[in-house]
Amino acid sequence: MSAYEDLMAFQRRTEALAQVAGRLGWDQETVMPRGAAEQRGEEMAAMEGILHARRTDPRIADWLARAEAVDEEAEAQLRLIRRSYERATKVPGRLAEEIARVTSVAQGIWADARAKDDVAAFLPTLDTVVRLRREEAAALAGGGDLYDALIDDYEPEATADTIGAVFDRMRPRLVALREAVMGAAHQPRALSGHFGHDGQMRLARDLAKTFGYDFTRGRLDLAVHPFSSGAGNDARITTRVVETDPFNCIYSTIHEVGHACYELGIDGDYLLTPLGGGVSMGVHESQSRIYENQLGRSRAFTGWLGAEMTDRFGDLGLGDADAFHGAVNRVAPGFIRTEADEVHYNLHIMMRFDLERDLIRGSLGVADLEEAWNARFLSDFGVAVDRPSHGMLQDVHWSIGLFGYFPTYALGNVYAGCLHQALRAAVPDLDAHLAQGQTEAAVEWLRENVQRFGGLRGPRDTIRHACGFEPDEGPLLDYLDAKFAEIYRL
Amino acid sequence: MSAYEDLMAFQRRTEALAQVAGRLGWDQETVMPRGAAEQRGEEMAAMEGILHARRTDPRIADWLARAEAVDEEAEAQLRLIRRSYERATKVPGRLAEEIARVTSVAQGIWADARAKDDVAAFLPTLDTVVRLRREEAAALAGGGDLYDALIDDYEPEATADTIGAVFDRMRPRLVALREAVMGAAHQPRALSGHFGHDGQMRLARDLAKTFGYDFTRGRLDLAVHPFSSGAGNDARITTRVVETDPFNCIYSTIHEVGHACYELGIDGDYLLTPLGGGVSMGVHESQSRIYENQLGRSRAFTGWLGAEMTDRFGDLGLGDADAFHGAVNRVAPGFIRTEADEVHYNLHIMMRFDLERDLIRGSLGVADLEEAWNARFLSDFGVAVDRPSHGMLQDVHWSIGLFGYFPTYALGNVYAGCLHQALRAAVPDLDAHLAQGQTEAAVEWLRENVQRFGGLRGPRDTIRHACGFEPDEGPLLDYLDAKFAEIYRL
Repeated sequence: MSAYEDLMAFQRRTEALAQVAGRLGWDQETVMPRGAAEQRGEEMAAMEGILHARRTDPRIADWLARAEAVDEEAEAQLRLIRRSYERATKVPGRLAEEIARVTSVAQGIWADARAKDDVAAFLPTLDTVVRLRREEAAALAGGGDLYDALIDDYEPEATADTIGAVFDRMRPRLVALREAVMGAAHQPRALSGHFGHDGQMRLARDLAKTFGYDFTRGRLDLAVHPFSSGAGNDARITTRVVETDPFNCIYSTIHEVGHACYELGIDGDYLLTPLGGGVSMGVHESQSRIYENQLGRSRAFTGWLGAEMTDRFGDLGLGDADAFHGAVNRVAPGFIRTEADEVHYNLHIMMRFDLERDLIRGSLGVADLEEAWNARFLSDFGVAVDRPSHGMLQDVHWSIGLFGYFPTYALGNVYAGCLHQALRAAVPDLDAHLAQGQTEAAVEWLRENVQRFGGLRGPRDTIRHACGFEPDEGPLLDYLDAKFAEIYRL
Repeated sequence: MSAYEDLMAFQRRTEALAQVAGRLGWDQETVMPRGAAEQRGEEMAAMEGILHARRTDPRIADWLARAEAVDEEAEAQLRLIRRSYERATKVPGRLAEEIARVTSVAQGIWADARAKDDVAAFLPTLDTVVRLRREEAAALAGGGDLYDALIDDYEPEATADTIGAVFDRMRPRLVALREAVMGAAHQPRALSGHFGHDGQMRLARDLAKTFGYDFTRGRLDLAVHPFSSGAGNDARITTRVVETDPFNCIYSTIHEVGHACYELGIDGDYLLTPLGGGVSMGVHESQSRIYENQLGRSRAFTGWLGAEMTDRFGDLGLGDADAFHGAVNRVAPGFIRTEADEVHYNLHIMMRFDLERDLIRGSLGVADLEEAWNARFLSDFGVAVDRPSHGMLQDVHWSIGLFGYFPTYALGNVYAGCLHQALRAAVPDLDAHLAQGQTEAAVEWLRENVQRFGGLRGPRDTIRHACGFEPDEGPLLDYLDAKFAEIYRL
């Protein structure tokens, strides 16, 4: 065997173990008995120890030095392995395991604190998580910016500066749009009523199929915080049900279907290799967002969805299809990011970006986070946070150490905007398909132009290759302006 | 840290990883999408590779040479670690991984073959599994008996000879009892009717609680072949529902509760150590069997259960409590081991014991197994096997390489017989409790005298310590004779 083959055989095994660790995470969020939490922390730490040892195995350096890339694919594999090796060798194994153990337990502590609206119960844990991740960031950054070092985990090539510049350009147009929408004379009505749990889950399953989700290689379960998990031939999704708000379940499901279809759509030759996963969190989010928003919340698709819901649940009491479309896309300054409309969503992200950057850089202490959050929320959204579960306790991310992850949600929106523009050009009659509840043309285009390549190209390159132009925030902002001008009759 | 502490820290990590591998198995049997089977084989092989590398880590020999046991517990830990190390180092890592990969995939092939009653579709796979396990047995046996080497994996201290001797003593009394029962003038009626899926699952959950199962450290799901899985604070069970036969679900559940309560009942200090699991499959089965049979199928408990079922499902159409007890304990020469009554059950095991011993020793070829099975079944049970899914394809065990495992089921019955005799002596008013649907006195005695010790003592020693006498088949056979004489009015 050549050095390249030896390396790839070793890597394949590592990827299989990473899938196992991921499955443990799925288990923890969906089916694990609560009394198992402490033990699970030990198990996660043990897996992390194994993975870290493999990712830093000195043989990798030797193989990398001798391996020769015969084609573009091999070149990309080697590039990703080298990147992973260089990052992993910078972090002491002890620290990687401690982070795995602490964050596994921290998640339960966060969930309890959120349920009780008890910030104080969470702060010591958050303090530990921030301390550990800063320690890791320092090891990774080698004197560079700590927050950049963490962003790089989720969105290679991006930095706080490049992301901050995008956000600075987006903000004025989003704020202007928000003001126009909030002040508009025409305000769409919200959907009200009661939508039973089982009926929502049936609809969720059917919508997953509508968007091409392959249930022979995945499954749909309930979770407090919907997520997708796994790659290759086992990419699972979760959703949640709020009986007064079926859109929560519907759009959570479509969103997670986008993530899972990305994983399931990757070229089978890349299975259990570094190329066999989404290239970055931003590109991943571009898939979930375009499924959810540009397709799922389009006027054409909601025309079909409104009729489908009426068939299943009876008259929705909203009037015509435009009114249903308005209800789906209603803009309101809510507390919760995951429930935010398309206009407010990126403003939530910008706020988290600034706060977590300051936490990681050390200019904001954990003890001062709640006050900083609440002040910023009032200033950006014009509403005072009424309780911590509507404020800094709302998201799981920080409890599990995900700092540098939030901005990729907004990058995903930006990329989705670009892809949507290119998709519309490639499939001019897309609305005619969507109006029939048919997504094949769209998801096929995405699979062919984005998903199947997995990690072959870098994040921006992946989008550029699919779109044929340099990605920026313009298409997203144009799309939002046009869409909400129509809905709000601006 | 002392050598003992170093060794235990290493071992704790290995046990945590073994729990992870076990959870993958649970996932595969309950929730895994079927398209993930191949990939799962890779994942299982990767975990097996990791576990095998740890179990054969040369540092263990060094630690063992230097470790000093300060008490009985430490002595037992070292004994189990030494045993595991000696066995693991005899098996090449390549072989251990190949077995993990092949058996993971073989299970799906077996399930398909069983569904289609297609022996030929299973034979090549079975042939591979037998070949690999014989290869492993040869590595373990070091010139000794191949089948003994495999038995030792599941029931340390037992051999084909010692088990064969027990079976030889049991057979005449079981055959005589079977003949008396089958020829009796009084034959209890069977339960008939339709019992809805959801109602059975609710009853199963309630019965699990009745027998002390802690749902904060476990869960109940559906599986084709009920099993229990996991240890420490995450011991899960599964059951199945046949709408015409609620006893299938009820007694599968109580059986698996017995297994899981054993794991959950082990001293918390032994968590993630070699002592923190059941000592052998035979002792494990003694717990599941005493819960299921000596308690769950007793006249006292079925008196309560019959009333409970009548409350839930309406009149059962059987008449009085004696008739219900008769229906629960009806003796019939069915094809399926897992559905066998207490009289026939051990006869099924004896047949498998003889067949698999011949397969592993090489005196029976896989190609001749079906004929051998069918001839033996006709001779022992007086009925011709009508299709392979009622014959050699009925059980999962051989597909996943479990050779040497079947006899532990009968040993479990023998041990349950002994424990039952001791329990009755210790709790003279046990029937008064069971007649109220109260199992605390029994399960508390079992926890106190068997379960909490985990792997502290050897299998026979564990039973001897609990009972105060040398275990043999006498109490089981006396119990069966008395029980069925009463039911069948012999």
